[in-house]
Amino acid sequence: MSTEKNKGTKGVRQVKKHRKKKLSIEDLTRGVLNGDKAILARAITLVESTRNEDLKKAYALIENCLLKKSNSIRIGITGVPGVGKSTFIEIFGKTLTSLGKKVAVLAVDPTSTLSKGSILGDKTRMQELVKDPNAFIRPSPSGESLGGVARKTRESVILCEAAGFDVVLIETVGVGQSETAVHSMVDFFLLLKLAGAGDELQGIKRGIMEMADAIVINKAEGDNLKRAQLAKVQFERALQLYPPKENGWTPQVSTCSAVENKGIIEIWEMIVQFLNTTKDNSYFEKNRQKQNKYWLLQAIDELLKQHFFQTSTVKENLETMILKVSKDKISPFRAAEVLMAGYRKELK
Amino acid sequence: MSTEKNKGTKGVRQVKKHRKKKLSIEDLTRGVLNGDKAILARAITLVESTRNEDLKKAYALIENCLLKKSNSIRIGITGVPGVGKSTFIEIFGKTLTSLGKKVAVLAVDPTSTLSKGSILGDKTRMQELVKDPNAFIRPSPSGESLGGVARKTRESVILCEAAGFDVVLIETVGVGQSETAVHSMVDFFLLLKLAGAGDELQGIKRGIMEMADAIVINKAEGDNLKRAQLAKVQFERALQLYPPKENGWTPQVSTCSAVENKGIIEIWEMIVQFLNTTKDNSYFEKNRQKQNKYWLLQAIDELLKQHFFQTSTVKENLETMILKVSKDKISPFRAAEVLMAGYRKELK
Repeated sequence: MSTEKNKGTKGVRQVKKHRKKKLSIEDLTRGVLNGDKAILARAITLVESTRNEDLKKAYALIENCLLKKSNSIRIGITGVPGVGKSTFIEIFGKTLTSLGKKVAVLAVDPTSTLSKGSILGDKTRMQELVKDPNAFIRPSPSGESLGGVARKTRESVILCEAAGFDVVLIETVGVGQSETAVHSMVDFFLLLKLAGAGDELQGIKRGIMEMADAIVINKAEGDNLKRAQLAKVQFERALQLYPPKENGWTPQVSTCSAVENKGIIEIWEMIVQFLNTTKDNSYFEKNRQKQNKYWLLQAIDELLKQHFFQTSTVKENLETMILKVSKDKISPFRAAEVLMAGYRKELK
Repeated sequence: MSTEKNKGTKGVRQVKKHRKKKLSIEDLTRGVLNGDKAILARAITLVESTRNEDLKKAYALIENCLLKKSNSIRIGITGVPGVGKSTFIEIFGKTLTSLGKKVAVLAVDPTSTLSKGSILGDKTRMQELVKDPNAFIRPSPSGESLGGVARKTRESVILCEAAGFDVVLIETVGVGQSETAVHSMVDFFLLLKLAGAGDELQGIKRGIMEMADAIVINKAEGDNLKRAQLAKVQFERALQLYPPKENGWTPQVSTCSAVENKGIIEIWEMIVQFLNTTKDNSYFEKNRQKQNKYWLLQAIDELLKQHFFQTSTVKENLETMILKVSKDKISPFRAAEVLMAGYRKELK
């Protein structure tokens, strides 16, 4: 049954696209609310579409889905390539479904357009989870900008929650600005690390450690176990230097082995503790409201800039201005006003 | 002589304002280029003015000043209140003037409008440096937004450099977003800390430690000396967990006592090392160019948003939209598009 659906899903996104009958907003809404994974996949495809007519349908669909109250938790998972994210998500996801949870796995990877979907693109990386009827896996949407990718993922989260998925995992890689974006759309932010103070520890972007609600040191197994435990102590010490978090939660450090399924259930227990803490002190609800407002302001910002940088006067003069500014021929603020004056003139 | 000039400076900003004859752009340019501190102070007042006619004059003046090549270094200094910033800057500044340097001290404090100039507002806090003919001290400009304050300070830096000040210290407090702003306008970023793992260590904003090129633990004196040395080791360990900096410089941790003038000259020697490293690897120059471009894009962003949020349709509908978005009645991205559509309509 689930294999059948997966085939269908694949079909929508590939060759069979044009042979499928278009679904109405009502059909899509009903299918999503019924938890039909094939329809959910098609609904997400609609949300990801850049065609104008699709956009209008997508917004209607999302507004329908927003009406469904969900008791979900959104978990962000980051870590540099090689840290074992796929293996971790597979075993973590399987643990959650064995506890009766429905798990959706999404990704934010603005580079996926170039690399043709580096994260989750290859579903063979999570073979067990893909087959699980209570799991739904979707690769990163493609898009030119992080803003576009983030928007699409945020909206896919709403669809997944309306479809009854109560744990939404959002994966991202430890490069670029995508961590900040994911951090701003999740309730809990988990940083995967490797033991050893060498290069593996280093290649993570500045500022990410400070966003983490938990640091989990993966591959704590065999010869690596001792180093992992040492790394745990080091990270605990480092975290002590940071100020307490607004959410009343003290970030935890733990070790796990995804391949040996050790320390995995403990991570979920920790997240349940986090939920209790932040629901008791109302941070959970407040944070979601704050995030919604943040994305409104972000979207305004993005739309304003998109419009500005697309006008012909700005296109014509921007490079010259950047050059002048780099060479200290004009102050950056003056240059901005000159460009802005041209922009306003063109608008009228 | 210098006291005379200081009196003059004070006069410009206070009651005697209207009795002073207005200086032409040529007079101001000549005065600044001659290193006349009284004229420099009046030039900065012009740059800080929010009157439209002043703005045009200010830009002409800045463009004149940009022509003067300077071999300056811009140093950002941050730390929470109580860390001893004023005392540190006074002794550090005096050390630099004794080495033949000309030192300008500016500040970025967006809260200064409310607190009537909390940083550097009270010049009595740096009595020795104020009297030094080779030093120039200016409190934070006031302004409603960080963007406004940052712009004014950036432009004051250009004026100070044109006036021959070859070390520009920019002070800020360890709260809010002002660190990021200061970090983006300096060559070297110094974080002042106190010994002791208690509250003093904690009250610094997340992310600031990662921006630092040096962490200096102040008040390493008397009973505190041992604790300061321990803190040094802790910070060194913590810094090891961060990835190498783009500038090829390994952030240093040191201790000092501003009141006992210990470890101060060593900080300057470290900064000279930093200069050698980053000038050799071209990072210094590239970073300044990158910063100019950053401020151009920042200014565009600020002007776009200013304009958007001031239009009547946005003013009328923003609060309702924020409420709807917080309550999950509408997706943030859809809400942004609705507001944007109203904005574009009003522009035409």
